[in-house]
Amino acid sequence: MHLLRKFPAATWLRAYDRGSLTSDLLAAAIVTLMLIPQSLAYALLAGLPPEVGLYASILPLVGYALFGSSRTLAVGPVAVVSLMTASAAGGIAAQGSPEYTSVALILAGLSGLFLVGLGLLRLGSLASLLSHPVISGFITASALVIAASQLGPVLGLRAGGDNLVEVVEKLASNVANVHLPTLAVGGLAIALLLWIRHRLGPLLKRRGVRPAVADLVVRAGPVVAVVASIAAVALFGLDAQGVATVGAVPGGLPPLTLPDFDPELWLQLLPAAVLISIVGFVESVSVAQSLAVKRRQRIDPNQELLGLGAANLAASFTGGYPVTGGFARSIVNYEAGAQTPAAGVFTAVLIAVATLLLTPLFRLLPSAVLAATIIVAVIGLVDLHTLVRTWRYDRADFVASAATVVLVLGHSIEAGLVAGVGISIALFLWRTTRPHVAIVGRVPGTEHYRNVRRHEVLTSPRVLAVRIDESLYFANSRYLEDCLTAAITDHPDISDVVLIASAVNAIDASALESLELLVRRLADADVTLHFAEVKGPVMDRLARVGFTEHLGRGRVFRSTHEAMVALDPAMAG
Amino acid sequence: MHLLRKFPAATWLRAYDRGSLTSDLLAAAIVTLMLIPQSLAYALLAGLPPEVGLYASILPLVGYALFGSSRTLAVGPVAVVSLMTASAAGGIAAQGSPEYTSVALILAGLSGLFLVGLGLLRLGSLASLLSHPVISGFITASALVIAASQLGPVLGLRAGGDNLVEVVEKLASNVANVHLPTLAVGGLAIALLLWIRHRLGPLLKRRGVRPAVADLVVRAGPVVAVVASIAAVALFGLDAQGVATVGAVPGGLPPLTLPDFDPELWLQLLPAAVLISIVGFVESVSVAQSLAVKRRQRIDPNQELLGLGAANLAASFTGGYPVTGGFARSIVNYEAGAQTPAAGVFTAVLIAVATLLLTPLFRLLPSAVLAATIIVAVIGLVDLHTLVRTWRYDRADFVASAATVVLVLGHSIEAGLVAGVGISIALFLWRTTRPHVAIVGRVPGTEHYRNVRRHEVLTSPRVLAVRIDESLYFANSRYLEDCLTAAITDHPDISDVVLIASAVNAIDASALESLELLVRRLADADVTLHFAEVKGPVMDRLARVGFTEHLGRGRVFRSTHEAMVALDPAMAG
Repeated sequence: MHLLRKFPAATWLRAYDRGSLTSDLLAAAIVTLMLIPQSLAYALLAGLPPEVGLYASILPLVGYALFGSSRTLAVGPVAVVSLMTASAAGGIAAQGSPEYTSVALILAGLSGLFLVGLGLLRLGSLASLLSHPVISGFITASALVIAASQLGPVLGLRAGGDNLVEVVEKLASNVANVHLPTLAVGGLAIALLLWIRHRLGPLLKRRGVRPAVADLVVRAGPVVAVVASIAAVALFGLDAQGVATVGAVPGGLPPLTLPDFDPELWLQLLPAAVLISIVGFVESVSVAQSLAVKRRQRIDPNQELLGLGAANLAASFTGGYPVTGGFARSIVNYEAGAQTPAAGVFTAVLIAVATLLLTPLFRLLPSAVLAATIIVAVIGLVDLHTLVRTWRYDRADFVASAATVVLVLGHSIEAGLVAGVGISIALFLWRTTRPHVAIVGRVPGTEHYRNVRRHEVLTSPRVLAVRIDESLYFANSRYLEDCLTAAITDHPDISDVVLIASAVNAIDASALESLELLVRRLADADVTLHFAEVKGPVMDRLARVGFTEHLGRGRVFRSTHEAMVALDPAMAG
Repeated sequence: MHLLRKFPAATWLRAYDRGSLTSDLLAAAIVTLMLIPQSLAYALLAGLPPEVGLYASILPLVGYALFGSSRTLAVGPVAVVSLMTASAAGGIAAQGSPEYTSVALILAGLSGLFLVGLGLLRLGSLASLLSHPVISGFITASALVIAASQLGPVLGLRAGGDNLVEVVEKLASNVANVHLPTLAVGGLAIALLLWIRHRLGPLLKRRGVRPAVADLVVRAGPVVAVVASIAAVALFGLDAQGVATVGAVPGGLPPLTLPDFDPELWLQLLPAAVLISIVGFVESVSVAQSLAVKRRQRIDPNQELLGLGAANLAASFTGGYPVTGGFARSIVNYEAGAQTPAAGVFTAVLIAVATLLLTPLFRLLPSAVLAATIIVAVIGLVDLHTLVRTWRYDRADFVASAATVVLVLGHSIEAGLVAGVGISIALFLWRTTRPHVAIVGRVPGTEHYRNVRRHEVLTSPRVLAVRIDESLYFANSRYLEDCLTAAITDHPDISDVVLIASAVNAIDASALESLELLVRRLADADVTLHFAEVKGPVMDRLARVGFTEHLGRGRVFRSTHEAMVALDPAMAG
């Protein structure tokens, strides 16, 4: 049973029927159409030979199908992970060298091991450390870097660099060498792709085409551009005029590979592999969950780690590079009617067939057209709206997001991610360091107690009721000490303080220590500390270490009102 | 006015009278008696010449008196900070070299600048990142390292090392060279000090001495040991028999110094200076606050930063080394009746007089006796009880504390502190990552809603009420997504979910994003998401970004009961 849980394919295979088969086959065919140009393009973005993209779209899909928990997630090369691969591998070897390809295999292998490890330890929640604003900033900035880097092939220039500044500088220094025929091809491809993306859908729908079908046709736009450009190169001999093409792509099935085991190199690549894994996982699980809930299916994030881990291990054994679930691709798979992960297996078979039969055609495919498909795809990921909204909603989140954007654009994707996560954690801690603490009084005629600053309430001259709106832990326990000691020096006549713990979900050892210290300190000043509305689990825990014995004359009351009436009968009225 | 706030001496000086003068002078005299042997001993612990300890007990006390906010804190050299100084300086230069002394000056200067900087930025709460269990583990482990390192002088052996393992190894390898006369002096001193500490107090009290006076006599124990041992050396010529003494201590006032400005060295020492500052600040502010509250006086932690910063800057300008508020010494100052920081100024004057007049006496003071005073002082800091109690109360805190102990004993104090802080933060985040989420139902006959797992409650077949007991932020927003999507797949018949936010004190941008995503996802599954009991400030914030417009058919209810009745009239009964 335990083994079966790790092997979800066992569940859906048992119920597999003719209906599922037809749906899955159709979805696989459509996804394949979309995936072929994407595989080639993203491999080039990663600085790898185009066939590596195809290899990464065969066995990894089978790996995910066997172990993943989503029925419709479509796995393979994606833009951001390709850029991260280029950045990590570029630091070790030169693009085009055998070492570079070998580093990509190691990255896939390490990423696979890391994901499987997290999955077995059920540590999927580690990914939560990437906050939405940081991811959003990261994706936007990466998309800009990717789009800029793809301007090189569109302009017929050599380009490269780890960040936007470097990419733009290199392009600018080369601008005199723009190759006009290439620019014409690339420019036309961009125009065609944008027209398909923004105009073709409404047009088809007006002509009575079913919206779902129209959307699928729009998604297949890159195939149209690829086919048209191959035809144009063949007809007009554009390659002879210097328009760069993908060139000879070796046909045949993926090779069996094994990442080189070089402990020092693995250690050096580990941070990049961890970042690639986490970014890939976060994006993937979010798509998978969005699609699953539409059919009231369940995604198990820890099972997803195993699925994506298996996919990456498969990539490292078959000449691929890091993969994850693709956003647009999974939506196409879902909308085309995929019922089970078998659709992924069929996609893998179709890509394998394409690798065997279609590679001669790619010889004439202009690199500028692949670059154009990337530019049009990633430009849709730029999301300035979220940045503006974050600014309006939460300045701390904005700082984390903006730091990520600036560092990705100006330094490197790794620095951006790490800084974003570090800043979010620091600002979160900073915020909980100074929780909201209110002195409360009784709303006349009720047993409710509200903040004395916001409401007209009755207070006692001798008993101070203080409510704290946060769990008590090390980073705010000293603040609580400061607040309460300040409160009793500001109110010299009080003899009792009631600490209302209705919003305290936990008290850690530091806070416990602080509370005991407060009991003693207040006793030194002839003030007794009482508690009210302590939650059950919190009280159980305090009882375990005999906290109530430290309270001296202090008591624990069920409600604030009970406490106030017991300590100052005048409050009963 | 602003300047005056930064200069608290202005407040108490205005009200200074004859009564305060008498009290402060008496307290200063008693503290001086205690401080002279401590200054010499801690300087030797820090690896510095003994007179540096005296210098660090003169002008730094005046610096604190002018800028600190505590009326009774006694500043000067302390054990843990001395050990940290030895550890940091030992990494740069050899003990006894002029470079070593110069590094100590730089550490004091850097520490002073850092503390003043934090104070001006009002960032005192940064110190909260040191949790109680980490501090407690750190102090216990440091005390063991200090005590072990002082066995060297007591045994007449050369000793040293950055951690307990190294210290013990070095002692063990030297054990054949134990100097018996030194051991006799050191052993007698330890026995005398322990007798004074544990037996003399009760004895005096039985003889009718006032408890406060008896306590002060006990605290002056080290002076007795120092005087007796100087007399013994003089009488029996023990120095001629090879008992090591402090030797010639130059008399005269502290020299004016300026820390060498070497940017590279400063950068290298910065992490150590930061740790020294934070540890010193945390210990000092906790003593200051405990004493202040007894007289209902106030401590301003940011003002304390300025006071301690001034003290350290003063140390760096007058041949000292890092200082902070001492625990035992401040209690003596308080109990001896110190009324204002003028007591600190008088102590400084008396120490200066001692530096002028008494230094010839120290020539005969055995190092073993100073080491004995340190051993007896720090052994009281070893606190295994807290470690055991932390284990019983909170395993996460125990892990942080134990890691600190193990690393301090086995590696270095810096590693222990950094690991302790890192682990506490990681475990805190981990804990808030999986908040308590409960499905609740109505307690029959009331309008209260409680956890369905713990109480016999009424639930609706169509409306699910879910309460989340934590603020929503990036590290748990994905968990919330998982919980709610799982809840609706587990309950296929429900049409509405009510999210009860009574314990949600804040919602950050990630959680906002998650909530909007949940609204859409649940809508895809024909389920409407509603909210109940959202706190006022949280709602204000959500309103600012038009959150309610994203709710679709969802509504925000004031109370859970209101929501349940509105969505399922059958719940009204």
